[in-house]
Amino acid sequence: MKKNISIIGASGYSGAELLKILLRHPDVAVTRVFANSSAGKRADELYPHFRSLTGLVFEEYSIEKVINDDLIFIALPSGEAMKVVPSLIDVGKNVIDLGGDFRLHDPLLYTKYYKHDHTASRYLSDAVYGLPEWNSANIRSAQLIANPGCYVTSVLLPLLPLVKEELIETKGITISSLSGVSGAGRSVSIDLSFSEANETVKAYKTGIHQHTPEIETLLHDLGGMQSTVTFVPHLIPITRGIYSSIFVTPRGSVSKDQIESAFEKYYSGAPFVRMIGSAAPEIKHVQHTNFCDIGWKIYERNNQIILHSVIDNLVKGAAGQAVQNMNLRFGFGETAGLL
Amino acid sequence: MKKNISIIGASGYSGAELLKILLRHPDVAVTRVFANSSAGKRADELYPHFRSLTGLVFEEYSIEKVINDDLIFIALPSGEAMKVVPSLIDVGKNVIDLGGDFRLHDPLLYTKYYKHDHTASRYLSDAVYGLPEWNSANIRSAQLIANPGCYVTSVLLPLLPLVKEELIETKGITISSLSGVSGAGRSVSIDLSFSEANETVKAYKTGIHQHTPEIETLLHDLGGMQSTVTFVPHLIPITRGIYSSIFVTPRGSVSKDQIESAFEKYYSGAPFVRMIGSAAPEIKHVQHTNFCDIGWKIYERNNQIILHSVIDNLVKGAAGQAVQNMNLRFGFGETAGLL
Amino acid sequence: MKKNISIIGASGYSGAELLKILLRHPDVAVTRVFANSSAGKRADELYPHFRSLTGLVFEEYSIEKVINDDLIFIALPSGEAMKVVPSLIDVGKNVIDLGGDFRLHDPLLYTKYYKHDHTASRYLSDAVYGLPEWNSANIRSAQLIANPGCYVTSVLLPLLPLVKEELIETKGITISSLSGVSGAGRSVSIDLSFSEANETVKAYKTGIHQHTPEIETLLHDLGGMQSTVTFVPHLIPITRGIYSSIFVTPRGSVSKDQIESAFEKYYSGAPFVRMIGSAAPEIKHVQHTNFCDIGWKIYERNNQIILHSVIDNLVKGAAGQAVQNMNLRFGFGETAGLL
Amino acid sequence: MKKNISIIGASGYSGAELLKILLRHPDVAVTRVFANSSAGKRADELYPHFRSLTGLVFEEYSIEKVINDDLIFIALPSGEAMKVVPSLIDVGKNVIDLGGDFRLHDPLLYTKYYKHDHTASRYLSDAVYGLPEWNSANIRSAQLIANPGCYVTSVLLPLLPLVKEELIETKGITISSLSGVSGAGRSVSIDLSFSEANETVKAYKTGIHQHTPEIETLLHDLGGMQSTVTFVPHLIPITRGIYSSIFVTPRGSVSKDQIESAFEKYYSGAPFVRMIGSAAPEIKHVQHTNFCDIGWKIYERNNQIILHSVIDNLVKGAAGQAVQNMNLRFGFGETAGLL
Repeated sequence: MKKNISIIGASGYSGAELLKILLRHPDVAVTRVFANSSAGKRADELYPHFRSLTGLVFEEYSIEKVINDDLIFIALPSGEAMKVVPSLIDVGKNVIDLGGDFRLHDPLLYTKYYKHDHTASRYLSDAVYGLPEWNSANIRSAQLIANPGCYVTSVLLPLLPLVKEELIETKGITISSLSGVSGAGRSVSIDLSFSEANETVKAYKTGIHQHTPEIETLLHDLGGMQSTVTFVPHLIPITRGIYSSIFVTPRGSVSKDQIESAFEKYYSGAPFVRMIGSAAPEIKHVQHTNFCDIGWKIYERNNQIILHSVIDNLVKGAAGQAVQNMNLRFGFGETAGLL
Repeated sequence: MKKNISIIGASGYSGAELLKILLRHPDVAVTRVFANSSAGKRADELYPHFRSLTGLVFEEYSIEKVINDDLIFIALPSGEAMKVVPSLIDVGKNVIDLGGDFRLHDPLLYTKYYKHDHTASRYLSDAVYGLPEWNSANIRSAQLIANPGCYVTSVLLPLLPLVKEELIETKGITISSLSGVSGAGRSVSIDLSFSEANETVKAYKTGIHQHTPEIETLLHDLGGMQSTVTFVPHLIPITRGIYSSIFVTPRGSVSKDQIESAFEKYYSGAPFVRMIGSAAPEIKHVQHTNFCDIGWKIYERNNQIILHSVIDNLVKGAAGQAVQNMNLRFGFGETAGLL
Repeated sequence: MKKNISIIGASGYSGAELLKILLRHPDVAVTRVFANSSAGKRADELYPHFRSLTGLVFEEYSIEKVINDDLIFIALPSGEAMKVVPSLIDVGKNVIDLGGDFRLHDPLLYTKYYKHDHTASRYLSDAVYGLPEWNSANIRSAQLIANPGCYVTSVLLPLLPLVKEELIETKGITISSLSGVSGAGRSVSIDLSFSEANETVKAYKTGIHQHTPEIETLLHDLGGMQSTVTFVPHLIPITRGIYSSIFVTPRGSVSKDQIESAFEKYYSGAPFVRMIGSAAPEIKHVQHTNFCDIGWKIYERNNQIILHSVIDNLVKGAAGQAVQNMNLRFGFGETAGLL
Repeated sequence: MKKNISIIGASGYSGAELLKILLRHPDVAVTRVFANSSAGKRADELYPHFRSLTGLVFEEYSIEKVINDDLIFIALPSGEAMKVVPSLIDVGKNVIDLGGDFRLHDPLLYTKYYKHDHTASRYLSDAVYGLPEWNSANIRSAQLIANPGCYVTSVLLPLLPLVKEELIETKGITISSLSGVSGAGRSVSIDLSFSEANETVKAYKTGIHQHTPEIETLLHDLGGMQSTVTFVPHLIPITRGIYSSIFVTPRGSVSKDQIESAFEKYYSGAPFVRMIGSAAPEIKHVQHTNFCDIGWKIYERNNQIILHSVIDNLVKGAAGQAVQNMNLRFGFGETAGLL
């Protein structure tokens, strides 16, 4: 029998992408889509690509409406999920939160980077970090899954095998990431208008982006390494996609074989990670897919390993990974609805 | 001696383009830039490309501040210019309005298309339509110049020679225009955000765009033809530029020579109109310039003449043409500051 | 049991899109992919998005290799399909040709617009035009299906109901279409390079594009109307999608209801045509789908009906429609593999 | 009296940009434009934006034709300039080469990165590196000026003040650069076609780009530092512009004031370098200009200084800088023709 699913915050880009994936997922039925600001509108009014595919109407959220659902996805801006998650957890619901509210353990760290207090910090310790390639055992039994940040996914997948196998130094990890504009969400601002964002590039939040502590926390939790990273995101004029170029220092002498073995060890069975050798990946090869493509090179001249990774920020960086987590949680095929 | 110039509404795209052109114009000095919403900000804070080029600071507008200026440009949204123009005219100032408030004679027509009343209709009859290639004599002596709409410029320049020489029928004139997103101004809306406007096209205001009556009025006033036109604008994912494809019916049998002669007659001395024969023009050839490139073809199979024209909407479609009008008004070289 | 399918010309954009669709089609197996210029290369070498999805290798074509296939798709440039189709037909194979070689009946018309002779004109009369919404009965029993041109699909779907119901005049039909650059195929030329095609627009082949006679022929064959149309395509800086704005004259007085009824009559059961009323469609709503969205308006001021339609040129304009034809031909669900 | 100038290789993007700048330069006259592959074509045929601005016709190059010129710009692909420079130098002509042939001293290093031999290595020692902010004294008296690489300009300008003041370590310098597609020149390849380069990003030549040794050589020659750098360029879907993000390690404890003083010391009088503090620059602020905007931050958490710089690759990264060099060479105002 199909699982019943609802989405809170379904009118944003991640929510809409989630709806798109779930509508063609063989094992679930979407019961309701919540979006307070668009309540009363049909999903296909806001997103006409849904015409003839669904008649769902956005509703105002209340907990009674999801009481029979098997799982609730939350795709709200940071600071909003923490308002609805506690009551859902308390009544025993399964929750996957696509936002940043439950990814860090430390409420003070959260406050420092997200610039507001955490009002549900009691639930932080329950949350399981939803990076399927690295945390599947916990995900399978989790009640509250914190879906990773988009940039973070693109950084952890290439780094973790090297971290776990202790092939790199903890110092000097440097990450230059490029993101398409949809990463900023379905939001209105002059900076994100076409005329301003087209034909240009800008770095933003250099070194202070909220994904910085998330990367560091998970390098520790999943990789066992204490480190400080430099993370610089850039906004580029494409709609979808993230490109991360990562520079690390090998720990002593590290061979090509050692690196290959590390990736082989962790990703040989991972359906959504594609190792492409020393070639540089391209965003277009993963757009509209749940894949992460990773290429790497030992750069002996300057004693570095250089890693490149690409994902679609709305799929592997958000909705697709959330569905992958759901698949693990419910024991569906890991790739169900995602190929 | 240089003329003193100020700009009201200098913080929008047309205003900023105007400032850029005027700063390198040999015969004028920009005294002040007004922008109520950005008052107190430096121009190069809002538009960092001005860094090191000007120290001007946006100010709140008041008439006292422009009392010594020789000419005031107005680049405000429709409905706003009509609030400041009367007092400026009354104290004898020269005004060039880049907006739509003084382009039509008929306040009822204005209200029908602009969706608000005209509160300065008494001044409509004073306004001279600022299409330099067709109205230079009046422009030279005008106190109030109504700078043409961007689409309208791209339509009138190819059509007027054929209209004036009575080479085309008044019925069935059909115009399909494409505009870059900057045509919508420096405004904030979901529809104009990069993620929404990129990699797509949409027609908008099909048949009801406010430039429709402007085209019809000027075909009459400057060309002597009473007609109804179909005008359909489309939004395309480029920042700058307008492409107009225009379909008309020849009046009886019209030869290639007749058309060539018509264009030659009106544009042989026009520095900013480039006739390119039967080739189709391209937006990139006129970007950041004040040129209008025009190509045309007699399409005998379907008894039509097909015209293609391109302009940069912010230059020949707005700020550049405004400066061209100023050049005529003050007896500067027509191309001063524009090549 | 699954049908066996091969693709000749699989390395171009239409061929690769076809492969993508067929790989996830429940009722077929792709046996071989032919691409002489890339023979020996893996499909995922040329198109890395196929990594981990298929191990198929491009091969040189020979008829022996397809002898056990149930259907062969051909996605070759015009002039090439005519070299391989005759032998395939002669041995009794089912063929769907995505190119232009078998869409017109008249070899002289073909030569006039395609600029080379037709060397398989004997087979022209066998070809069934593959517009599923209008020709399904013939498609179901056809051996050779000529898949429609991309522009043509975007024009016929909105026009045919009005033509068939005799609601419009045969004279003065005017079509302004915009196409993304992938419409030009995976080809190399300065004009199609990013630096040249970005941030610009150009009309091309004004009035002489090879889809002109195809539109006229099918308006006659499927709609029963003899007419001459003006068709002007424009190249715009997006990768995928076609936008067509079509201007026609109503035959006498035509009501909104009559038009609505016409569309209802022909498309109420059509899974891939979405009528969206008087709204203008947008390319993004159909990208990566097999839908055609159509909006329309009676424009009484100038006695016209204005139609807007959008498709993805590689899906409904090529590979998707080809699969829709295959679905009809083999009695699969019409939407199999396409939603 | 105006200086007479000709351009060899005028049909590429750098050559055409050079022509555009020189046509409006007050102190020079362009006598001839050479482009063997386009010989006989008018410049405005290949680049229609030149219509009505110049009647110059591309010619086949021969040394006799430039014998009366005061200076010859060369904008040829690497490997080509070395064929014409020797004879020009030998007859005493002033030459500014925009390509890479005369930027390195060491012919073996040239061969290693450019993949062909240097056939004019005798002239390498004569060449003066044309970075005006750092080498003006030599430029003023140089016969042969090697105009810097585009990426290199964007890297040296932010780095050199810190290098010269010994504020950074020589180890671990890491550069992630993004370039618009025009950086690849007016060349034809599938990879650079719109459909392939749009809506994507790829790193290329990771660590092996030919600008790597140029950066290292000039950090030494102009900055006095021996170092190895990691340089990773990425291709992004814009036409013009370079964004460089540079990560370096401070030498001991370095204060904000020290860095500010270093930039002040070298750039307070530099008309084309704009220091923008800790803000991140944006490509759009320098497009179509000769400016380099630089922002920087001390990132104490990870013991780094992070620098961001932007230029227009065709202006400050090529033609504009070449004209700036010419201005110095001839004693014109440094900004003549460039504002």
